[in-house]
Amino acid sequence: MKTLLPSLDQYETPRLLLEKSCLISNVRRLQKRLSEMGKEVSFRPHMKTAKCIDVAEAVFGEARPPITVSTLKEAEYFFDHGFNDIIYAVGIAPKKLSRVIELRRRGAELKVLVDNIDSAMTVSQAAAEMAVSVPALIEVDTDGHRAGVAPSDGESLRGIAAILDARGSLAGVLTHAGHSYNCTDMECAAAIANDERDGAALAAATLRQSGYAVPIVSVGSTPTAHAARSYDGITEVRAGVFMFFDLVMAGIGACAIEDIGLSVLATVIGHQKSRGWIIVDAGWMAMSRDRGTQKQRIDQVYGLVCGVDGAMYPDLLMVEANQEHGILALRANSTASLPDLPIGSLVRILPNHACATAAQHEDYLVLEQGTPSAVWKRFSGW
Amino acid sequence: MKTLLPSLDQYETPRLLLEKSCLISNVRRLQKRLSEMGKEVSFRPHMKTAKCIDVAEAVFGEARPPITVSTLKEAEYFFDHGFNDIIYAVGIAPKKLSRVIELRRRGAELKVLVDNIDSAMTVSQAAAEMAVSVPALIEVDTDGHRAGVAPSDGESLRGIAAILDARGSLAGVLTHAGHSYNCTDMECAAAIANDERDGAALAAATLRQSGYAVPIVSVGSTPTAHAARSYDGITEVRAGVFMFFDLVMAGIGACAIEDIGLSVLATVIGHQKSRGWIIVDAGWMAMSRDRGTQKQRIDQVYGLVCGVDGAMYPDLLMVEANQEHGILALRANSTASLPDLPIGSLVRILPNHACATAAQHEDYLVLEQGTPSAVWKRFSGW
Repeated sequence: MKTLLPSLDQYETPRLLLEKSCLISNVRRLQKRLSEMGKEVSFRPHMKTAKCIDVAEAVFGEARPPITVSTLKEAEYFFDHGFNDIIYAVGIAPKKLSRVIELRRRGAELKVLVDNIDSAMTVSQAAAEMAVSVPALIEVDTDGHRAGVAPSDGESLRGIAAILDARGSLAGVLTHAGHSYNCTDMECAAAIANDERDGAALAAATLRQSGYAVPIVSVGSTPTAHAARSYDGITEVRAGVFMFFDLVMAGIGACAIEDIGLSVLATVIGHQKSRGWIIVDAGWMAMSRDRGTQKQRIDQVYGLVCGVDGAMYPDLLMVEANQEHGILALRANSTASLPDLPIGSLVRILPNHACATAAQHEDYLVLEQGTPSAVWKRFSGW
Repeated sequence: MKTLLPSLDQYETPRLLLEKSCLISNVRRLQKRLSEMGKEVSFRPHMKTAKCIDVAEAVFGEARPPITVSTLKEAEYFFDHGFNDIIYAVGIAPKKLSRVIELRRRGAELKVLVDNIDSAMTVSQAAAEMAVSVPALIEVDTDGHRAGVAPSDGESLRGIAAILDARGSLAGVLTHAGHSYNCTDMECAAAIANDERDGAALAAATLRQSGYAVPIVSVGSTPTAHAARSYDGITEVRAGVFMFFDLVMAGIGACAIEDIGLSVLATVIGHQKSRGWIIVDAGWMAMSRDRGTQKQRIDQVYGLVCGVDGAMYPDLLMVEANQEHGILALRANSTASLPDLPIGSLVRILPNHACATAAQHEDYLVLEQGTPSAVWKRFSGW
């Protein structure tokens, strides 16, 4: 039997809310999309947004699918909760290898990422010294956004592969088209998805031509996963923020605003009537400083404001954030009127970036049909 | 005897570092400045940046001076560590009053903040119902930045005071010139400090003319505390980020870059040589998304990069931050050359905003003369 939680109007603020129905439907939508792509491509969700076993169990039940993580703390936590097939998708720092090796000794099918000869050597040497295999993927840069070897740079790919392969630890290639976050429509995301696929497939083909096995060809980001038209040559897709979605993703067109599962509950603590401001007790500590919609067609500043029932107020934004204060005001040139929100009123603020906002909180207050149904702890740190 | 900690090159990254000598000298500098102002003005440091008893004890020793807090969790934590005279400097939300009353019953001299009739009524009624006094300060808006009653709005000031005074709980007036963060020099901060002082003193005088006692007249922000030329009519000064300082404060001129006590240790995990990039394992999760220097004369993007010894690399910045990746590159038009930082090299990144960066970490690795000397836990949440 479920413990009955107080109704939403009984909580202190700020408080992170998670609409369970959005979480479930967002995950089902991407799973369905991938299964309909007409090709055997597996799904490796990224757990860096959720950082919570209850989120994973809500969507995967007893299943323990392959996952992606952004920290070794995530790897350790999810391994302790039964997840075995894990890619740590940040280029490995030498001093982190001891924790990787410890996890592998405990039975984790943990794989690491390298994009250069030195890192490959370090992985290979550590594996040899500790008599443990440490499978590594080669990171491929398909959008000039961050890390990785250029797909056309056969020499580097082969050089890294040779070092890894000597220890039997070349696991495949991986790319992340983070540049897709800068798209303002899904046509753009589809084009980047194409580059992501082409680059990963080219790198894999280059390595295979030189005789290397490349079991994993991994691509993904939330926008490209929702926009890709083909996964030819790809073995798996990754995505993270798709579980919760946020205003950046809505601005790209990867979701509707109604799909956003995460919001921050806040209380009205003041007004500056002459300026058209409503002051709430949620600032950047609760929302994060993420301004991801700043460069989009519609700048949502620090977030879109909804009532406690989740219905959006027309054009009401958090226009400024101090540490523990947020200022709500109408969008410039709006013809809407400022809602009447007396002191003590509750509002919900939709975030720019779910990963950043969730990271500011210790737990999720889970809502089912608007009613609190559970508190799910999340973790932070490295 | 001190426990010997490993040398700095032995830590996994990202890791928050705190130079103890900076902390001490930053606090001593402001204490000295205030004591030299030639007037009896007390100091009420804001603990929202530090959120750590060890930081407080490093600077105050056994003393338990008056403090300011931004959350009730800070109030509870510091009260449990012996601090008694506490102002919770965010307009009180009605549902938070039960925790305030609980702290007062336990003996805390906790004071709250109101800037409107409704909040004053709620405080007054709750105090009456619970048979506990709840002293409140009236927030005054001296810079149009956020919350507060205009200093010239005698009617509102008297209206709020009348409600509070009926319960004997008018503790004074308080203002925070947060607008001083937008200054680009200390002349500007001095002008805002003057407005801050004038406004607070005017509000206090207005209330006293109507017969109310106004024991506390509280002003402050780090820039104005370092720039103010007079505290006539003021009883106490508040400041928070001055303990650690950061690039925003250096950009204003409130400190030198060498005074910044906080940095994030990161490891080089890759290079994109053709683009002049060095990739490290600290992204926005470690630095925060704060871009406080964006509007300053010198934009430090996500932070200035130093060697592990703390010496700055000329013009080297974190120019982009993903969740767990940072991209280091030279400032545009720099004539410096990119330092040779092989895979595994450690760097230290100075933050834009100490409050936001510290909030991303669970502890401080404390350095004395470059050597780790302690680990101090910090807390988060509300």
